[in-house]
Amino acid sequence: MKGVILSVNPSAAIVDITHHVDPQDIFQAASIIHCSFRYFPEGTTHIVVVDPGVGSDRAIIALRRFGHVFLAPDNGVLTLLYDEAEVEPAVQVDNQDYFLKTISQTFHGRDIFAPVGAHISLGKDIKSFGKPVSHKDLVRIDIEKPYISKAGELIGAIVWIDRFGNLITNIEFRTLNEFCRSDVKKNCRVIIGSNTIDELSENYANIKSKRPLAIIGSRGYLEIAVNCGHAAEYFGAEKGDPVKVICR
Amino acid sequence: MKGVILSVNPSAAIVDITHHVDPQDIFQAASIIHCSFRYFPEGTTHIVVVDPGVGSDRAIIALRRFGHVFLAPDNGVLTLLYDEAEVEPAVQVDNQDYFLKTISQTFHGRDIFAPVGAHISLGKDIKSFGKPVSHKDLVRIDIEKPYISKAGELIGAIVWIDRFGNLITNIEFRTLNEFCRSDVKKNCRVIIGSNTIDELSENYANIKSKRPLAIIGSRGYLEIAVNCGHAAEYFGAEKGDPVKVICR
Amino acid sequence: MKGVILSVNPSAAIVDITHHVDPQDIFQAASIIHCSFRYFPEGTTHIVVVDPGVGSDRAIIALRRFGHVFLAPDNGVLTLLYDEAEVEPAVQVDNQDYFLKTISQTFHGRDIFAPVGAHISLGKDIKSFGKPVSHKDLVRIDIEKPYISKAGELIGAIVWIDRFGNLITNIEFRTLNEFCRSDVKKNCRVIIGSNTIDELSENYANIKSKRPLAIIGSRGYLEIAVNCGHAAEYFGAEKGDPVKVICR
Repeated sequence: MKGVILSVNPSAAIVDITHHVDPQDIFQAASIIHCSFRYFPEGTTHIVVVDPGVGSDRAIIALRRFGHVFLAPDNGVLTLLYDEAEVEPAVQVDNQDYFLKTISQTFHGRDIFAPVGAHISLGKDIKSFGKPVSHKDLVRIDIEKPYISKAGELIGAIVWIDRFGNLITNIEFRTLNEFCRSDVKKNCRVIIGSNTIDELSENYANIKSKRPLAIIGSRGYLEIAVNCGHAAEYFGAEKGDPVKVICR
Repeated sequence: MKGVILSVNPSAAIVDITHHVDPQDIFQAASIIHCSFRYFPEGTTHIVVVDPGVGSDRAIIALRRFGHVFLAPDNGVLTLLYDEAEVEPAVQVDNQDYFLKTISQTFHGRDIFAPVGAHISLGKDIKSFGKPVSHKDLVRIDIEKPYISKAGELIGAIVWIDRFGNLITNIEFRTLNEFCRSDVKKNCRVIIGSNTIDELSENYANIKSKRPLAIIGSRGYLEIAVNCGHAAEYFGAEKGDPVKVICR
Repeated sequence: MKGVILSVNPSAAIVDITHHVDPQDIFQAASIIHCSFRYFPEGTTHIVVVDPGVGSDRAIIALRRFGHVFLAPDNGVLTLLYDEAEVEPAVQVDNQDYFLKTISQTFHGRDIFAPVGAHISLGKDIKSFGKPVSHKDLVRIDIEKPYISKAGELIGAIVWIDRFGNLITNIEFRTLNEFCRSDVKKNCRVIIGSNTIDELSENYANIKSKRPLAIIGSRGYLEIAVNCGHAAEYFGAEKGDPVKVICR
């Protein structure tokens, strides 16, 4: 892909955001691109090839939002970037003039996404690549959100486990703040399986080695970690497991 | 290596093709560079440091082919790029003016390949680095090719297993096409161990989760995969295992 | 981090030295940056985020040495770069004008180090980022050095194990040379556990497959390896284990 990009745009600055999305995990990819794009310069082209449907008749879409351009399969991976107001429609990418001459069935990243993305990075308007399509007509994935149970607990879930074994939940800090109005750090208790963590930590440094903690991670979501350890092993936790929060 | 390259050529665009060649596997590296180089811009310098003989008296060679330059140990890793017609000889790289001042015994990548490659990327003619040497005199590895057995089966082999567990064979699509003249996709059956896959798939998307498939991969070779799974574990397969094709 | 760097300095050439420092291993990181920086162009900015104390009150420092700039937490990771003569003081980085607007508690790499490093790469003087601080007042880690035992053996230790399983010691080649005055390669014997390696090898190529060897690695330190194998598994060795050298 990088060779193809540089063939079209020799001065492209190419950054790998990640190659570690769990296979087929479109929700995880959707979360990562949503958390990451804002740290890149305005005008960046983001190529999001998490594409279990490669070679099928799934469409490819490009859309502009917040001054960035996103290019991805139409499988919901951009769900968190759809625009309710729809200031500008998306585009269904099918103009083969910008594809490689030979298209493999298993690697559209190289044969379609890379050359199209490179042309976008050169300033080519996304309208050049195909017909407009409403954000409302794009494939959308369900984003599992935390809810409040009858017992008054905030119920979220582990949505992914990073390479350090940290458990990242779908509970945003502002959701936690609304749920637990006063002094959230002292008053909230985080429950995973039969274990309770008694407060939110400010950092890792004040926690003893090998002890668990709950913390707001760098993406703004509640995470459960073990200082100098591996929380997934420590708790025997898996993706999808529930995480509860109680407010004292 | 990248620091050394940028010290010589501060505006080099550096791309890592792979760091995952199986240790000592010169054939695999030869296949990867042969499949990959054509996706890079003409004029690219390819530094191929798969070098089990580092520190011995193995030579280092540079050669120009298809408008690209290749720099590698003379251990056969460029076998698939040798030119029968030999329009231009290769060069045996030994001009120490372009090496780092101190040469370690175990990391010529940093001390020799990186600075020489960077000078090539600046446009320096490969003749500057040493004496011409005929392609015929370069080390050559045996490229195991598929053959047709007495029973009329096409016999190939698994030549590597990628990080997703896909089994990549040495059977090119055009070989398959010649072997199985009509409607290769419907008529060919792929046999691995005691398992038979009944046709070639167009893509992963039409295959049920956890089910095996045979497909032409993005490099143009027959691959055996398991949708959302790990074919090497599924079949208990290892590098070197035979793969047979029968045509109905 | 790369998005943030490119937002400040769009033409920065960014190189990842490593993402494989063992968690919390400040000594290992200190060794790697000390061995690596000299291969980069003068004027390079090195951002060293091995930062177990992130979010605590540990300081952040910048210092200039050998024509390079180093930016790191004040946790000793730059110990090997402190200057006894102290031609120029370090700087304690606390000027929030150069930080991102929102600072997370767990990822100062992105929120502080990346933007500050990018401003340094644009030529901004390190004095702009905070007050001068003497090298003598910076946090320092103990660098375990080899010593000569009463029995006259040179006693070092395995300081890390690389991803190939090679055992890297803290014994520099020049220490070995001083210890074993004549023909060090023939006369030194390297002892690990109950195993003895009888000489220093010049390279891997002359050693039989799966056989152990002792060699001066590309960083200039004694390493123990197994040709085409994994020395840590072969010897059951762990980080911190002693390695002895005897001179015949």
